[in-house]
Amino acid sequence: MPVHQTIAILGVGLIGGSIGKALRERTLADRVIGIGRNEDRLRMAEALGTIDEYATDLAAGVREAEVVVVCTPVGHIANHLLEAAQYAPKHALLTDAGSTKHSIVKAVEAGLRAAKPRAGSGEKSAGPLFIGSHPIAGSERSGCEAARGDLFVGRQTVITPTKKTPPEAVERAAQFWESLGSRVISMPPAEHDRIVASISHLPHVVAALLAAGTPEADLSFAGTGWRTATRIGAGDVGLWEQILLDNSAHVLKSLAKFEKVLAGFRRALESGNARALRKLLAQGKEHCERVNDSSAGQSDN
Amino acid sequence: MPVHQTIAILGVGLIGGSIGKALRERTLADRVIGIGRNEDRLRMAEALGTIDEYATDLAAGVREAEVVVVCTPVGHIANHLLEAAQYAPKHALLTDAGSTKHSIVKAVEAGLRAAKPRAGSGEKSAGPLFIGSHPIAGSERSGCEAARGDLFVGRQTVITPTKKTPPEAVERAAQFWESLGSRVISMPPAEHDRIVASISHLPHVVAALLAAGTPEADLSFAGTGWRTATRIGAGDVGLWEQILLDNSAHVLKSLAKFEKVLAGFRRALESGNARALRKLLAQGKEHCERVNDSSAGQSDN
Repeated sequence: MPVHQTIAILGVGLIGGSIGKALRERTLADRVIGIGRNEDRLRMAEALGTIDEYATDLAAGVREAEVVVVCTPVGHIANHLLEAAQYAPKHALLTDAGSTKHSIVKAVEAGLRAAKPRAGSGEKSAGPLFIGSHPIAGSERSGCEAARGDLFVGRQTVITPTKKTPPEAVERAAQFWESLGSRVISMPPAEHDRIVASISHLPHVVAALLAAGTPEADLSFAGTGWRTATRIGAGDVGLWEQILLDNSAHVLKSLAKFEKVLAGFRRALESGNARALRKLLAQGKEHCERVNDSSAGQSDN
Repeated sequence: MPVHQTIAILGVGLIGGSIGKALRERTLADRVIGIGRNEDRLRMAEALGTIDEYATDLAAGVREAEVVVVCTPVGHIANHLLEAAQYAPKHALLTDAGSTKHSIVKAVEAGLRAAKPRAGSGEKSAGPLFIGSHPIAGSERSGCEAARGDLFVGRQTVITPTKKTPPEAVERAAQFWESLGSRVISMPPAEHDRIVASISHLPHVVAALLAAGTPEADLSFAGTGWRTATRIGAGDVGLWEQILLDNSAHVLKSLAKFEKVLAGFRRALESGNARALRKLLAQGKEHCERVNDSSAGQSDN
């Protein structure tokens, strides 16, 4: 018996498509509805088995949904959540999969608060439940062609409740992500944004700039090492621009720390300080090994 | 019919072991002799099929070799080449697989020149032929357990002749690396060192420092992106320390350029200059795609 009747996914790319595929493979919902503007892409998402049906009209798509997951680019998520909130059933859980959380959660909570008086109906605490989510799973690939039903298995999803989040939203969001195979961690939106700046956004920036800064004439000599170190820098430029601008305060702090580490290394190399070089290289190796050991059981192909 | 009778490999790790494996799989030599100090490791290299036999005495190991390839850590290569030159047959070709070339080639050429008068035999242009080589193929793995007979297939090997290099050495070294499946490019040692600083040494430093600089508390959140971007930073600390110190002038220049790119990005992010961010990210993505397109035919698993 499926756990849910109807789940709506707004934005059926890598993440949205993988959520749909996981729900369908695990028979967790009677209907998975994909919502988007581009009918060709929605048809492809359906053909790839990531959704059962699709809608190009957001209002129609979310009308019967028990869960609405917004998987559009970071710069659009808050508006999409607020629009979904107008049309989704009152018992619905609204969440998202954005790589940043503070600005989205703040905008949605403010929007929901502002919307209530406008309804003018006198109802109290009406409307759907909202909580921000971020499944820390991804790939340098994008698009629903890359969607995988096991994308979340063994990975972490951060949910970001605030003082305004109803306990029911926390519980249902945790159950939702766990049902896709994810481990769930709860923390405040700003703490989430600080951590992803450090372990996701900075690495993306560094990989992209390492690639960008390599002189054209040298590219033909690039081997396995260069390709591995720069690989994640090939991610979608538009998506990353939004993420970095949205999380710029934390990214700038992580970047400043990294620049200090680089400068320390440069001084050690300038002065031929083998011990200092060795210490930094050994610390890097040790961190790599610690992360790889701790994730040895994860599916990560 | 094998092309060579005896080939000696000094240092049977990833590169030396892969050379041996390739020679044996392609039946290019009657005997592949591995030379090293640690008999246990040599026995393992033999058991793994990377060499036919081994010697712990350098003089004995190279005595009948037509080709001697020195695959020891960068800091030892020049001395090993000069030692091999004393005992190898006069027709032997001596080369190496070091990741840096200028200091090695300079030291070996000076050593060979200095050795001749000391021989006092009146012979002219006696002694083996020497040319520096660097197969640009590798892995974050090390040790002969990771050796693969196809490691050089489709990859580039740089050979670094100088004015003193006999044309016969250039020709025989090119044939040797091509026989292992490699493409061969010839350039001066200093030009080689400048290029590898840019496409190999800087990426290693950046990956290692990205890992080293990640706060311990954040490591448990590191996902695929972090692991990919830092992976090559897990290479052998001792080997990399020698490479970076040996090639410090070029590495420092590449590092300074990278620091400028980072600083430009930081200023763009500080001022919310979306266009500048996008331009840098797009350039990184474009460089990644260009390298991956150009290497689509390479075996790179």
